[in-house]
Amino acid sequence: MLEAAEIGHRIAKDVYEREEPRLREALLNAQYELLQSKRFPVLIIISGVEMGGRGETANKLIEWMDPRHIRVRAFGPRGEEERGRPAGWRYWREFPPKGSLGIFMNAWYHDAMAGRIDGHLDEFRFERALDRIRHLERMLVEEGTLVMKFWIHLPQGEHKKRLKRLHRRDDVAWPVEKDDWERFRIYSKARAVAERMLRETSTAEAPWAVIEGTDERYRFLTVGKLLLDALQARLKQRFDRERRALAPPPMPVTDNLALIRNLDLAKKLAKVDYEKSLARWQRKLAASVRSKKFMRNHSLICVFEGTDAAGKGGAVRRVVAALDARQYAIVPVSAPTDEELAQPYLWRFWRRLPRPGGVVIYDRSWYGRVLVERVEGFCSTADWMRAYGEINDFEEQLVNAGTVVVKFWLQISKNEQLRRFREREKTPFKRFKITKEDWRNRRKWNGYEQAVCDMVERSSTEIAPWTLVEAEDKQFARVKVLRTIVERVEAVL
Amino acid sequence: MLEAAEIGHRIAKDVYEREEPRLREALLNAQYELLQSKRFPVLIIISGVEMGGRGETANKLIEWMDPRHIRVRAFGPRGEEERGRPAGWRYWREFPPKGSLGIFMNAWYHDAMAGRIDGHLDEFRFERALDRIRHLERMLVEEGTLVMKFWIHLPQGEHKKRLKRLHRRDDVAWPVEKDDWERFRIYSKARAVAERMLRETSTAEAPWAVIEGTDERYRFLTVGKLLLDALQARLKQRFDRERRALAPPPMPVTDNLALIRNLDLAKKLAKVDYEKSLARWQRKLAASVRSKKFMRNHSLICVFEGTDAAGKGGAVRRVVAALDARQYAIVPVSAPTDEELAQPYLWRFWRRLPRPGGVVIYDRSWYGRVLVERVEGFCSTADWMRAYGEINDFEEQLVNAGTVVVKFWLQISKNEQLRRFREREKTPFKRFKITKEDWRNRRKWNGYEQAVCDMVERSSTEIAPWTLVEAEDKQFARVKVLRTIVERVEAVL
Repeated sequence: MLEAAEIGHRIAKDVYEREEPRLREALLNAQYELLQSKRFPVLIIISGVEMGGRGETANKLIEWMDPRHIRVRAFGPRGEEERGRPAGWRYWREFPPKGSLGIFMNAWYHDAMAGRIDGHLDEFRFERALDRIRHLERMLVEEGTLVMKFWIHLPQGEHKKRLKRLHRRDDVAWPVEKDDWERFRIYSKARAVAERMLRETSTAEAPWAVIEGTDERYRFLTVGKLLLDALQARLKQRFDRERRALAPPPMPVTDNLALIRNLDLAKKLAKVDYEKSLARWQRKLAASVRSKKFMRNHSLICVFEGTDAAGKGGAVRRVVAALDARQYAIVPVSAPTDEELAQPYLWRFWRRLPRPGGVVIYDRSWYGRVLVERVEGFCSTADWMRAYGEINDFEEQLVNAGTVVVKFWLQISKNEQLRRFREREKTPFKRFKITKEDWRNRRKWNGYEQAVCDMVERSSTEIAPWTLVEAEDKQFARVKVLRTIVERVEAVL
Repeated sequence: MLEAAEIGHRIAKDVYEREEPRLREALLNAQYELLQSKRFPVLIIISGVEMGGRGETANKLIEWMDPRHIRVRAFGPRGEEERGRPAGWRYWREFPPKGSLGIFMNAWYHDAMAGRIDGHLDEFRFERALDRIRHLERMLVEEGTLVMKFWIHLPQGEHKKRLKRLHRRDDVAWPVEKDDWERFRIYSKARAVAERMLRETSTAEAPWAVIEGTDERYRFLTVGKLLLDALQARLKQRFDRERRALAPPPMPVTDNLALIRNLDLAKKLAKVDYEKSLARWQRKLAASVRSKKFMRNHSLICVFEGTDAAGKGGAVRRVVAALDARQYAIVPVSAPTDEELAQPYLWRFWRRLPRPGGVVIYDRSWYGRVLVERVEGFCSTADWMRAYGEINDFEEQLVNAGTVVVKFWLQISKNEQLRRFREREKTPFKRFKITKEDWRNRRKWNGYEQAVCDMVERSSTEIAPWTLVEAEDKQFARVKVLRTIVERVEAVL
């Protein structure tokens, strides 16, 4: 989830100066409406890396709103009072009442994360801690609390820069502690723990928003807007007692479009290099999936998603060319059958899992839930919001069973898509490849773009990362796909 | 949860013969309605002790309904096919489609329980397994499945009897294995594991029904009726897509009234014994709560619930008489204040937790949620159903922090209550103790009785068991209360 906050988000000064007063006014209005209606409490959790600007962000929210009805709580080491009481006691005493906002700095995430990093919590105790967190937050949401969680992240380079800057100044009130450098050294370990923690606690009822902390204007405006959206949505919602009617807060959509917009679609591969590379990676793939170790303990799932006409089919053909027909299966995923509709949406994929030594290639996949079903409104918001967690769960079970899960998103430009659509319409044997749906999807280009970036942000995990493929040049794309598969398979052998 | 299934439930033959045909017809009708509407699948999990009659129960359901649309699946050791695939694969392949019923024998509970008993799963891995189960079941419910879970239990004596009976017959097709006796020897260990597993997986969306297996007529009718209730309720419900509208199934209410009806209210204590005993237990209580070990590492919470006029106040006075005023606090719980209403319902109790060495006595408690709030409709069904799990969580956190949690239900008969109400009205200094609400509650005697038995069934845990107190004779009750507290405190010292 953290890559989306390593893009280099910035907001120009003039844009900020134009937007800030409007946001401020709207936030203040929402706060007063909440205060008067006293309908629910708002709990804002601000956590993330050291020096990412967590404190300033909390201060900014207070500056923007009426400080009498918003309070910040930070939780240090447990004191005398807390000894002999459950760990949750300190939080319970500080929950904001209905009508008001509370900001918890780090909240219950600090203990879990610090415990895992210093080894005090082993893997299972860490899981247990995350499970308790999910229980607690679920209870809060069911009791009516609007829970907003912001994780402020800094790319490693920025983090280092800030440490150095602090060191150079002798006049700072809070000099850098030895501890900070120590923490920087464990940056990558901490990053992996944070990834996992965010993934496992980003639930439909209380999803995380990961915010890049580098540029404070971006950080302030993004946090402010997400808070405003959620507040306004909840204030509009009517409460239906008998039906557990609380919808989840709107999913925090940060500006993550750069994830695909920054792809360098000019990447190309010359024909001669292409043929040589292709043959080489195909040989390697053939060798690794026929190895004894792979045949005995592993299997491979490749997921192909991408813009329409991005060349998924062609890439799939180059992959299977390296495989024995008895070893693999291609599963093209289109609208579900009646039989599949009668089951939970993941069922159709569970049916087709590879046996040990097998390879299954999905041409489109379970990600349909958070792509086409989301954009076209085929399922409810709550449905696709919980799908991220369910899909991460599913893939974790696959990986734990020895399956290598490789996921590709193939991206082309809007112009290139148009060119390919037209070409398909003209070429008789390609005409079947272009349908009304393709044109419909094209009209919703922006909606899909957002859904893709959210998908990558929320389901690119350390165990099953997404590979974004620049597919404007088919040859480049095919080689990148093959190379990625080989590298991922070789990594487990 | 298991005590409620050790009561000796029976149904007479003539009752069974009268009720069975009606139940059968209603079940068949519901099945056809489901089949035609194809609105949701029904997953029935039947698990429990060996020889409790799980198989016969499944067979009976099939006999009653149309066997073409209900299928039973048992899951043995994992086979060749399942190697290299996630453990969940076997279940996913067998989920019933919309419109039909599936019975899973033991389902995913067998592996978790067997693993914990043979030590293969340590405490944290066991917790992790239960967490995965909750995830899976929650996903099923959110995807629309009606999940019904029946745990068939046998009291230890009955279990032994069945083993012996089997042994005596040489002609049985399935002779008792050495394994069965082995399992019997670990009965109490298994019982504790089962208790915990049931408690932690009895969620609002998929609660367990614990059924006593001794009498097959009782077993068949109870399972059949609970299934019918849930089916009919779900068939009536309309589905509202945008609002995650699925209400939980009605809570499986088994006939557990004997939990309090079987109390021997004739128990008495003569005055002379009373005074001696009382003094003795008060001395012991004073000594143990002043011990260094208690003062340093423990605290004590006593919860007093009971029928109106059962003598809670008098019992509390006898307890605190043994304590130093600086050490204890009494928290009388009535309608929540505005401040308390603005918070999650458990908040008011978190505020008043004892410090190390302290004693807090709750005169009424967090159980109000599943008693008065349930019976009077002050909260929604979903709210009080999830409260059992939240309360068990809360008490587990207390116990883990070193607190001894002792819970009393004081029971008197309906006649005795009337006598005490009238006496209160006559006695000037007692008149404040009787209010309109007391008379209102009395009119709902049956509703409260059911709520109390459900409460005891679902929240009497190994770590914080309920003590039911026969309170018709105040002297007897007071001594039992004191003795119980002393025993529970001494057990941790």
